[in-house]
Amino acid sequence: MPETKILLQESEIPERWYNIMADMPNLPAPPLHPATGQPVTPDALSAIFPPALIEQEATRERWLEIPEEVRELYRLWRPSPMYRAHRLERALDTPARIYYKYEGVSPAGRHKLNTAIPQVYYNRAAGIKRIATETGAGQWGSALSMACQFFGLDCTVYMVKVSYQQKPYRRILMSTFGAEVIASPSDRTQAGRTVLAEHPDSLGSLGIAISEAVEDAAGRADTNYALGSVLNHVCLHQTVIGLEAKRQLEKAGEYPDVVIGCCGGGSNFAGLAFPFLADKLTQGKALRAIAVEPEACPTLTRGKFAYDFGDIAQLTPLLQMYTLGHTFVPAGIHAGGLRYHGDSPLVSQLYHDGWIEAVAYGQTQVFAAAVQFARTEGIVPAPESAHAIRAAIDEALKCRESGEPKVILFGLSGHGHFDLAAYETYLAGDLEDVPLSENALAEGLSHLPVVR
Amino acid sequence: MPETKILLQESEIPERWYNIMADMPNLPAPPLHPATGQPVTPDALSAIFPPALIEQEATRERWLEIPEEVRELYRLWRPSPMYRAHRLERALDTPARIYYKYEGVSPAGRHKLNTAIPQVYYNRAAGIKRIATETGAGQWGSALSMACQFFGLDCTVYMVKVSYQQKPYRRILMSTFGAEVIASPSDRTQAGRTVLAEHPDSLGSLGIAISEAVEDAAGRADTNYALGSVLNHVCLHQTVIGLEAKRQLEKAGEYPDVVIGCCGGGSNFAGLAFPFLADKLTQGKALRAIAVEPEACPTLTRGKFAYDFGDIAQLTPLLQMYTLGHTFVPAGIHAGGLRYHGDSPLVSQLYHDGWIEAVAYGQTQVFAAAVQFARTEGIVPAPESAHAIRAAIDEALKCRESGEPKVILFGLSGHGHFDLAAYETYLAGDLEDVPLSENALAEGLSHLPVVR
Repeated sequence: MPETKILLQESEIPERWYNIMADMPNLPAPPLHPATGQPVTPDALSAIFPPALIEQEATRERWLEIPEEVRELYRLWRPSPMYRAHRLERALDTPARIYYKYEGVSPAGRHKLNTAIPQVYYNRAAGIKRIATETGAGQWGSALSMACQFFGLDCTVYMVKVSYQQKPYRRILMSTFGAEVIASPSDRTQAGRTVLAEHPDSLGSLGIAISEAVEDAAGRADTNYALGSVLNHVCLHQTVIGLEAKRQLEKAGEYPDVVIGCCGGGSNFAGLAFPFLADKLTQGKALRAIAVEPEACPTLTRGKFAYDFGDIAQLTPLLQMYTLGHTFVPAGIHAGGLRYHGDSPLVSQLYHDGWIEAVAYGQTQVFAAAVQFARTEGIVPAPESAHAIRAAIDEALKCRESGEPKVILFGLSGHGHFDLAAYETYLAGDLEDVPLSENALAEGLSHLPVVR
Repeated sequence: MPETKILLQESEIPERWYNIMADMPNLPAPPLHPATGQPVTPDALSAIFPPALIEQEATRERWLEIPEEVRELYRLWRPSPMYRAHRLERALDTPARIYYKYEGVSPAGRHKLNTAIPQVYYNRAAGIKRIATETGAGQWGSALSMACQFFGLDCTVYMVKVSYQQKPYRRILMSTFGAEVIASPSDRTQAGRTVLAEHPDSLGSLGIAISEAVEDAAGRADTNYALGSVLNHVCLHQTVIGLEAKRQLEKAGEYPDVVIGCCGGGSNFAGLAFPFLADKLTQGKALRAIAVEPEACPTLTRGKFAYDFGDIAQLTPLLQMYTLGHTFVPAGIHAGGLRYHGDSPLVSQLYHDGWIEAVAYGQTQVFAAAVQFARTEGIVPAPESAHAIRAAIDEALKCRESGEPKVILFGLSGHGHFDLAAYETYLAGDLEDVPLSENALAEGLSHLPVVR
């Protein structure tokens, strides 16, 4: 009987992260200071980030050593399993061989802990006692809370108020791990107070929460800020996913024709795909890498490659990336983790240069794939991860047409245990696609900053 | 660095279940027909169970082969990981070595799928097209829904109405796997209609739901009934847990001094402990096995060893077991899976004969252990499983006093992702212990049936 799971031993947890900047023909343009429009200096970042992360953000070293203490904590769930989707393949009647790398076994239920742990590690090494961050639905906040608990740091999470009120489960998870969770906008920061003065009933936004967390961190010497996606060092940390996946496929005697990941801020896609893209960049492998995004927030497929702010309040450095405009607010789809207006500068540059592909799906198609996957493979996927499943199923169906026995690898970035309300809506036939508003897109793109 | 997880390959999934009846000096007394008081014949059971399960219920064969199709489905998550609790040990400053076997990696999030899969397999083999069952909070119903989906059988779950209304997540999970979920009492059965006629606003009970499911199954030739704990064949199927655990500890060069499992109907405790108890029964190993139950439902520690009904409606056979009386209704503690009034006849007989120990805890002590575990090991445990954690921590603390480096193994039977509301109550300081009512206990025991 063929194996269902390909497992690695703990001794096979990667010892180094892979830095794709070593192999990219075109590096991302430098981040610019939001006030001056000049490249940001490391000094300017040191108010909110520790030195090691500032260095990782810019280095062109190909391999960066994973600290032993980080690897020890990775052992709580890593190496994560890779599955051969035998039952899904049979249901699709496809000659394709489908594999998925499952990050939902992490205590945080998502890939996010892969970067939360090293981020807290480096902050502790720099003498930091407390970390402030923002969270939308609570995925990043949960992971950071756990990592802070493991290293004995305090953690304050500014959680978008509407999620704080309507999605209690991840809030409770953060509390269980000892974090202070604050509904944003709050009266704890000037940014929050300003919003509340104008809109006392504001339900908040990720943009406001970022501003609160950054203000909190910048104002206290013992406190730093942490971000769960987009930045280079975050993508770097996530490469443990793809490095393990390569080794697992090697054990199975396989190499993928197609690698698929869902893509919001980009770190999940980067983590899985970059170690494979290394072979394409340096050896010309004929690999396809597909970033999958929601039609409601089609950053790569409909956005513009330009300098833009990371937040609505225009506090962050300007990054050159695919963006829908920092004022763009996507519809309230269930894949909350894919609603960011921009994308990782690394992923954006690779897309701009034609190394990767992108595709967008509506959420009813995505949930149809999620339910088919659950019923065959048993795992209820996160709505974000289900975007990758949709694309993988469609690639496998193309193989059924063409008869090609392609090897398809996709990233199952998390489980859907906290997303079951969305499944109920879908199963009741009440889930709706929310097509992109062309007006909102034009409006968002019209607010891109002018850079000299 | 010492390993955190001890993993097995899929080829090491057990090929046979272990039947402890082969090694027990005293077998459980036979089940009696509820009407006649005479031992139940296999024929009487065939209205609701397939022949293979009726045979497994009574056989004294030591080893029973696991069908290949069942093992193939076990591969979706088995072998389950065993963890060395390094971080918990350090937090407790104990010389004990603590291991836990984690069943929460199952798609159903609990150990329940270990028996749901073979039960549906044997029903399909007997030509059955549909299975009816009951569920309280939805743990067993989720597992059975998945198993029915995997084998293409229809599944109808009678879910206690109060849980149906207040705990939507597991209900949605069952729907996602294609099951029909009915709030019980319902108008689908005579049993349900009788209750509704008297109490139109009834919120239901497990006793009523069992009656509805059994009536449904008995009334249709294409339909059987399935039970998620208590019975011998259920304990048998769960021994995959302990058989794997033995092999994993062998790999670590260890043998447990103490084996600990939470105990409601008994199948989780049985699954972990029986393969180790085999060594005690046949070779005189000095192993301690501890069943942990809630103070609010102390079946082993305060119940009576006697014949009793499995349900309030007195429809099931009489089983000789530790029981608080079939009319006993425990307080509404959060560990819903440990609220059954009786216990597995196998576990009961072993306890009666002194082969195992039992201990009961209040729920605030249990949640204190759960939070300590989550903050050190990262996994948020199910409230049921946290009973075993409490006992394991207390054994480890005794080792700190005595200086003994004992090997403690406990079963982490599931994750707490659907139980976070209970954590919120505990963290807010609002969780209360609900001491056993001596009056309720006396009342329950006074209704034990008189058997000739």
